[in-house]
Amino acid sequence: MQVESWVAGSWRMPHDEGTALLDASTGVEVARVSTAPVAADEALLHARTVGGPALRAMSFHDRAAVLKQLGTLLMGQRDACYELSYATGSTRQDSLIDVDGGFATLLAYASRGRRELPAGSVLVDGPVEVLGRGGGFVGRHVMTSRRGAAVQVNAYNFPVWGMLEKLAPAFLAGVPSIVKPAGQTSYVTAHVVRLMAESGLLPEGSLQLLVGGSQGLLDGLDGQDSLAFTGSAATAALLRRHDAVVSRGVRFTAEADSLNSCVLGPDAAPGSPEHELFVRELVREMTAKAGQKCTAIRRAFVPRQHLDAVTEALRGALEQVVVGDPRDSATTMGALVSRSQRDDVREAVHRLAAGGELVVGDLDTELPGLERGAFLRPVLVRHDDPWAPAVHEVEAFGPVATLLPYDSTSHVVDLLALGGGSLVASVVTHDADFVREVVLGTAAHHGRLLVLDRGSAVESTGHGSPLPHLVHGGPGRAGGGEELGGMRAVHHHLQRTAVQGSPTVLRSITGVQTPGAPTVEDGTHPFRKTMAELAIGDSVTTASRTVSREDVDHFATFTGDTFYAHTDEAAAAANPLFGGIVAHGYLVLSLAAGLFVDPAPGPVLANTGLDRLRFTKPVRPGDSIRAVLTAAVKMPRSAEQGEVRWDVQVLDQDDVLVATYELLTMVRAR
Amino acid sequence: MQVESWVAGSWRMPHDEGTALLDASTGVEVARVSTAPVAADEALLHARTVGGPALRAMSFHDRAAVLKQLGTLLMGQRDACYELSYATGSTRQDSLIDVDGGFATLLAYASRGRRELPAGSVLVDGPVEVLGRGGGFVGRHVMTSRRGAAVQVNAYNFPVWGMLEKLAPAFLAGVPSIVKPAGQTSYVTAHVVRLMAESGLLPEGSLQLLVGGSQGLLDGLDGQDSLAFTGSAATAALLRRHDAVVSRGVRFTAEADSLNSCVLGPDAAPGSPEHELFVRELVREMTAKAGQKCTAIRRAFVPRQHLDAVTEALRGALEQVVVGDPRDSATTMGALVSRSQRDDVREAVHRLAAGGELVVGDLDTELPGLERGAFLRPVLVRHDDPWAPAVHEVEAFGPVATLLPYDSTSHVVDLLALGGGSLVASVVTHDADFVREVVLGTAAHHGRLLVLDRGSAVESTGHGSPLPHLVHGGPGRAGGGEELGGMRAVHHHLQRTAVQGSPTVLRSITGVQTPGAPTVEDGTHPFRKTMAELAIGDSVTTASRTVSREDVDHFATFTGDTFYAHTDEAAAAANPLFGGIVAHGYLVLSLAAGLFVDPAPGPVLANTGLDRLRFTKPVRPGDSIRAVLTAAVKMPRSAEQGEVRWDVQVLDQDDVLVATYELLTMVRAR
Repeated sequence: MQVESWVAGSWRMPHDEGTALLDASTGVEVARVSTAPVAADEALLHARTVGGPALRAMSFHDRAAVLKQLGTLLMGQRDACYELSYATGSTRQDSLIDVDGGFATLLAYASRGRRELPAGSVLVDGPVEVLGRGGGFVGRHVMTSRRGAAVQVNAYNFPVWGMLEKLAPAFLAGVPSIVKPAGQTSYVTAHVVRLMAESGLLPEGSLQLLVGGSQGLLDGLDGQDSLAFTGSAATAALLRRHDAVVSRGVRFTAEADSLNSCVLGPDAAPGSPEHELFVRELVREMTAKAGQKCTAIRRAFVPRQHLDAVTEALRGALEQVVVGDPRDSATTMGALVSRSQRDDVREAVHRLAAGGELVVGDLDTELPGLERGAFLRPVLVRHDDPWAPAVHEVEAFGPVATLLPYDSTSHVVDLLALGGGSLVASVVTHDADFVREVVLGTAAHHGRLLVLDRGSAVESTGHGSPLPHLVHGGPGRAGGGEELGGMRAVHHHLQRTAVQGSPTVLRSITGVQTPGAPTVEDGTHPFRKTMAELAIGDSVTTASRTVSREDVDHFATFTGDTFYAHTDEAAAAANPLFGGIVAHGYLVLSLAAGLFVDPAPGPVLANTGLDRLRFTKPVRPGDSIRAVLTAAVKMPRSAEQGEVRWDVQVLDQDDVLVATYELLTMVRAR
Repeated sequence: MQVESWVAGSWRMPHDEGTALLDASTGVEVARVSTAPVAADEALLHARTVGGPALRAMSFHDRAAVLKQLGTLLMGQRDACYELSYATGSTRQDSLIDVDGGFATLLAYASRGRRELPAGSVLVDGPVEVLGRGGGFVGRHVMTSRRGAAVQVNAYNFPVWGMLEKLAPAFLAGVPSIVKPAGQTSYVTAHVVRLMAESGLLPEGSLQLLVGGSQGLLDGLDGQDSLAFTGSAATAALLRRHDAVVSRGVRFTAEADSLNSCVLGPDAAPGSPEHELFVRELVREMTAKAGQKCTAIRRAFVPRQHLDAVTEALRGALEQVVVGDPRDSATTMGALVSRSQRDDVREAVHRLAAGGELVVGDLDTELPGLERGAFLRPVLVRHDDPWAPAVHEVEAFGPVATLLPYDSTSHVVDLLALGGGSLVASVVTHDADFVREVVLGTAAHHGRLLVLDRGSAVESTGHGSPLPHLVHGGPGRAGGGEELGGMRAVHHHLQRTAVQGSPTVLRSITGVQTPGAPTVEDGTHPFRKTMAELAIGDSVTTASRTVSREDVDHFATFTGDTFYAHTDEAAAAANPLFGGIVAHGYLVLSLAAGLFVDPAPGPVLANTGLDRLRFTKPVRPGDSIRAVLTAAVKMPRSAEQGEVRWDVQVLDQDDVLVATYELLTMVRAR
């Protein structure tokens, strides 16, 4: 089986025989992969001329709906993915991270996209900025789809999740993806691409797969394209040096393996829950995916007084690990992806252990009956000198960690920084002061920090698991990029542009009411209009109502809100903000509703909420108030209903603003 | 006068004589600047070991206060800055952009920092993400000061603004700046640095100035440092190739000159206001700073039918421009910065004009009496073929623009994209459809878009002016960076880190109440505590109150809010969200206040607003409600008062949430 590329709507068989990819456990040939150059130019042209326009013709919500259908479809096809993944050395448990994790990421982006992105395909970023004194010149940032391709170069260890966590945000942003998987596990990626391609759900050109040599892949890229890389720091540097990145403005991000850490707190003595959590977490991180995770713990820092106890606990726990063919149900850790990867890991362990002690590990013995597999038992190194340079430089990308002592909080903060920037660190402790010092002391060096204790352990998702909600990436050695993090990853594929002009122009571009843009009062109360009938800027100005001292007294008695500023002349006079009796803010709000609500059944079903209410001037007995209500934002929620956000301004008899807020209502679609 | 460097708290005289910097108008020597290597390593060490710690020991508000004092101080020292700037060829009008613009940027960041940044020095980014079903494991993003230096390599054209627009956000973020000005105008920058250094306002090490050769400047940088460059695309590429950027994770951004455009709408026939605005804006952009602005208009696109009329109007207007010594009050355009710069511009004009027509311009004549100056009259080139490649490639960094025709909206959108990414484009038109098509069609290629028409012209800040509120930067050729844009530029100097743990841990790190973190009810109503006494998590649970049908009827009558869901049994029953009579949301809100308000005078002065109110379940007659109020965020506003944000949850008799919101109050400091 040759792994094919999916380019411009057709599968492409490579022209040469390629090289064999072997089952990580049995050494049997699983597939063949070519390193001949791929049709990069054709893919890029197709992405730009077909994929991009097709995606941009869809709204954010349209795209989210496709992601949801895709995720649901793929969830039904997991078993075949697990089967293929066994050949890469992955256990069923490992596939939960890669396969299920990948499909869940599609669904998470589908759901967040629908909830958090607006109607249409233009995202507004931040508030209106008033740029002139008269309010006739304003600015606002909009985010629109970049006009290029999102080229994604992935690592071998997560052939499914690695593709989908990059694809989902790009797709939602309206940018076509060109996926370049790592050769070693490309047959798994290709299988999932085939499922998606055959589903008919994807707009033509929105996803392409390039399996083969990467020569020339970057040559055609320009400032509208992006390149996202996951893999080694050395390859990241190579890509960063490419002329496309250096001179043509390609938006480049990298997520590189890093020397992630775990810190045991000084409070976590043997026997404490945190002591056990630390050992369990470290063993899990060393063995999941046989340690081939960019987030895996490489440096484990332990208070010097607990170092021996932790060493022994780990020795015991690691000896329980059952290494074997991932298809065997007794297996708790599978194989490395290949024997050549194992050679690399062994070589790195030799460098790591120099000057230290190999506490647990057997670098040489083959598993009986599986002598052609890429197996390696977990390796624990210990250095009593935590400054040993190799520890902070050498990454063994396998089931390997190094145990190191520390002497004080500031000491461990300094040691963490020696990693030169990491994806993630964990702090396992029940000491709040220690947590705060370590977290604030090391946050600048990390993309993610996990604090594990008896309170969070039950629900913890673990040190090694990036989540769709949280950013994945880290500074310095970790590549400096950010992925995931909810809509943050979608923003990466949008161009932010400051637009300046009159409020009317800004409204026309953003589709959102803008202060100063003329409103329309056409004689029909806007609450009598369906989503379809309502236009942004439709408005109503109410009659006015005088707020009497009796109203205030009555409201205080009725609601029980007898705050002195509403009830006690002398005390109210002494209040520095009021200087006398004022109406309750909630009275103003309630009377405003009384003025603008249209009582008879109609398209407006309910007031669901309210945002950004500010009381800007006290209302005193005798003041008259009226409200101006203007349709500001329409957000479809279903075929039947949508949410309308209204700007409300409450003014007094002198036309001075006394309250301003955004009112949310649920409105019938038609 | 040798231009000195300011390093580690002392002024450093270069070891060689340096080369002469000449007055741009008279050719008289103004200062001498050395290109000998500067003390980069020493500056970097000082920034890391002294400046960073000093800044990080201050809160965001402390830093904002220093910026305000600095800006105020400098505003009083403008005249000397204008004097020095004359020597660079700048008119008084030009100095309004550079000198006043720079000082105003400090003040703008001071004011926004105080308003928009929280107490302390940790910024929370985005909401709490609940990561487990039980609510015992949550995540949130925090942003903390990066632990390196912000190295800023500036261009010659804005020696003051260029420094301060980069310094202000870095300072606010708690990151020390190392400024490397362009040699040609470094004496102006050094003058302002001297004023700031001598003010005693700056924490030691928070600002250093390196005047000299840039050899070795990048060699010591690592993943906690950033490098911000303004200048040519060629130099940007050189820096981007440096090992510090490629391999050591330095956060690099560039803002490069680009081929910015101005588009006249097809509606803007001769005689229309927009026609005149277009001509005026283009002339202003060509002549301000003698066209030496990275934002200046280089490509002017005009509907083919208006091309001749625009050509003639521009010819007339450009002939009125008075070129001369900027000290002369009759002068409307000063000199280029140097004769070598003029040589470059002339050479570029030759390439630009090849195949086109030099409509206005005289490349060779010297100004009588000022033959040693770097003067050049404005140059207008016209190409009748808008695809002429040179037009979209060659930048003449002087008072030079090219006039080009276009034939349709999609045509001009395509032509704009040929610039390969620009800082800014203007659209001058009164046609809303044309605006929308051009803006949405070209936004992905621009960092900023200005729409100019009769409505916005009076208050427009102009095509060429970056503003502190709006992002400055653009994709592709423009460098791909973003500066300014309010707090966005501050975020650039912070590291975003996802923190995961129990709600208690998250509260301890962010200083903000986190759902699920235990609250404290100590018998004292939290409204009876001053800012100083109140702790995050202080809480009160109220008694409960039953909402009767009479309450609802009465509230409807009293407020006038007789919406059918509160008053008409049959109609309410038909409402798909309610299915029966429900209490007004404002009634629930008012009764909740009645339950939690503590009536007697105390530290809480007023309810100033409310955020994120959501009605989560209808309250029906007979339901009982109670409220839980918890101190969530404290924000000092002055020595006397601060703002407290309270989480409010309103629950029914079954402990089901019926409403949730954030309440804002003004509270006495002590």
